[in-house]
Amino acid sequence: METFFSFLSKRVDDCSSLLCVGLDPHPSDLPTATAEAARDFCLNLIKRTVNYAAAFKPNAAFFEFYGPEGWKALKDVVTAVQAESDRLGSHIPVILDAKRGDIASTAEAYASSTFMSLGADAVTLNPYLGRDSIEPFLKYPGKGVFILCKTSNPGAGDLQDLSFTTGDQHGIPLYEHVAHLVQEWNTADNIGLVVGATQPEALVRVRKAAPDAWFLVPGVGAQGADLETALQCGLRQDGKGMLISVSRSISRAEDVRRAAAELRDDMVEIKNRMDHG
Amino acid sequence: METFFSFLSKRVDDCSSLLCVGLDPHPSDLPTATAEAARDFCLNLIKRTVNYAAAFKPNAAFFEFYGPEGWKALKDVVTAVQAESDRLGSHIPVILDAKRGDIASTAEAYASSTFMSLGADAVTLNPYLGRDSIEPFLKYPGKGVFILCKTSNPGAGDLQDLSFTTGDQHGIPLYEHVAHLVQEWNTADNIGLVVGATQPEALVRVRKAAPDAWFLVPGVGAQGADLETALQCGLRQDGKGMLISVSRSISRAEDVRRAAAELRDDMVEIKNRMDHG
Repeated sequence: METFFSFLSKRVDDCSSLLCVGLDPHPSDLPTATAEAARDFCLNLIKRTVNYAAAFKPNAAFFEFYGPEGWKALKDVVTAVQAESDRLGSHIPVILDAKRGDIASTAEAYASSTFMSLGADAVTLNPYLGRDSIEPFLKYPGKGVFILCKTSNPGAGDLQDLSFTTGDQHGIPLYEHVAHLVQEWNTADNIGLVVGATQPEALVRVRKAAPDAWFLVPGVGAQGADLETALQCGLRQDGKGMLISVSRSISRAEDVRRAAAELRDDMVEIKNRMDHG
Repeated sequence: METFFSFLSKRVDDCSSLLCVGLDPHPSDLPTATAEAARDFCLNLIKRTVNYAAAFKPNAAFFEFYGPEGWKALKDVVTAVQAESDRLGSHIPVILDAKRGDIASTAEAYASSTFMSLGADAVTLNPYLGRDSIEPFLKYPGKGVFILCKTSNPGAGDLQDLSFTTGDQHGIPLYEHVAHLVQEWNTADNIGLVVGATQPEALVRVRKAAPDAWFLVPGVGAQGADLETALQCGLRQDGKGMLISVSRSISRAEDVRRAAAELRDDMVEIKNRMDHG
């Protein structure tokens, strides 16, 4: 049985890209604030960037915003990515950015909603409730999760940077402890980490704590992080292990296709320089 | 302008109850696993327990489970509580148990979804992303949030019990730090805390850290926590400040109405004993 990360790795090879295109239909970016406009915005982004996208990441909030119609639109978006995968003969994972986290029986319902009803391939989860809130998501063959470790927002430090002493570890930040926990939990190659690029030293620490893990990395582009620094700090030895998640700098670009292509080309160039540096 | 907690406090007076009835339509509890059956299950629970309920707490997961139809059902459930409030002339708050947590612009979309589209009065939030993930929810007059502090599940300790040192505080668990943060953030009487009853010493610590806060308290009933111990550990001086959230021991009772009435009566009796103890 193939794992989520084996699918992802294949797709990264197929498109020579580590780019994850965020599908965040902000109401203010739409001609009208309707579920249909949100769907069309995403379908257009998918069509124009699909050749350069290792994955797509729709954000649940911008669909929930419209209630039932929004959930229909979200399903249409997932289905559109699957149709592109079939057309290209290359499985492009859909990562639902939902940051869920709840206790066991409730987590089971969220997992079913994500993987069965919506048909997403992976989902972002919040670690605050601990291991039993993650486990129900790990039972789906071929599916994956990305656990929030170090986020890219200004308030991330309120909890994530707190310094702990636990067992034989002294003075490590909470986010690094989460990375260690995830290393323990990831026995079936289906758990990655969300690590923002806005604080490169966090990428370095988390890469050290989880040498083989896949990172979903927001923060490049509108949030100001530098692509080259991020790749230098977080790439695995094999030149993989990072999905660079970009939303607004693609969706708000004058030429969406070119913005995605340039990001992909930049990644290839930086990796080549690193290989020969 | 009245605050969320002033509404809640009035309702607690009106029904002499600290009971929050959880609306968790587990698929396995329904005659058929459909959105309509989930809605009818909740409408029946509301009708039978409304006289004893200080608040209702639908869990988003068990509606998302059904996709768009589930969101329609959830809206019907919120509307039904509002109709009962109008009928009784007593505002019964609806707390959406969604445990959301995302960065600013996304949090804004979730807040709009919760308070505007659905019309809920409050929502549960996850603190892992820090203050800026909470703030967008605090801008709605009369609405409130409950931030996860110490949850009632077995894995809660994975992060929440970690002991750390920050500023002048040494060796306090993460959940207690969250309680201190929330004290700082709660400048408009609209932030409470989720504190499970399964570990009474946590209730004591959090009450000490946040003497005036409202707690949403799961864990009594199916999860095994004792009602009297919980009230003794967590009630404020004024005999309020706790909403005891009960789901399965009411919804799975042979006589739902009686189960809710007995819980309410038990609360009154325990409080009376405490007043004269």
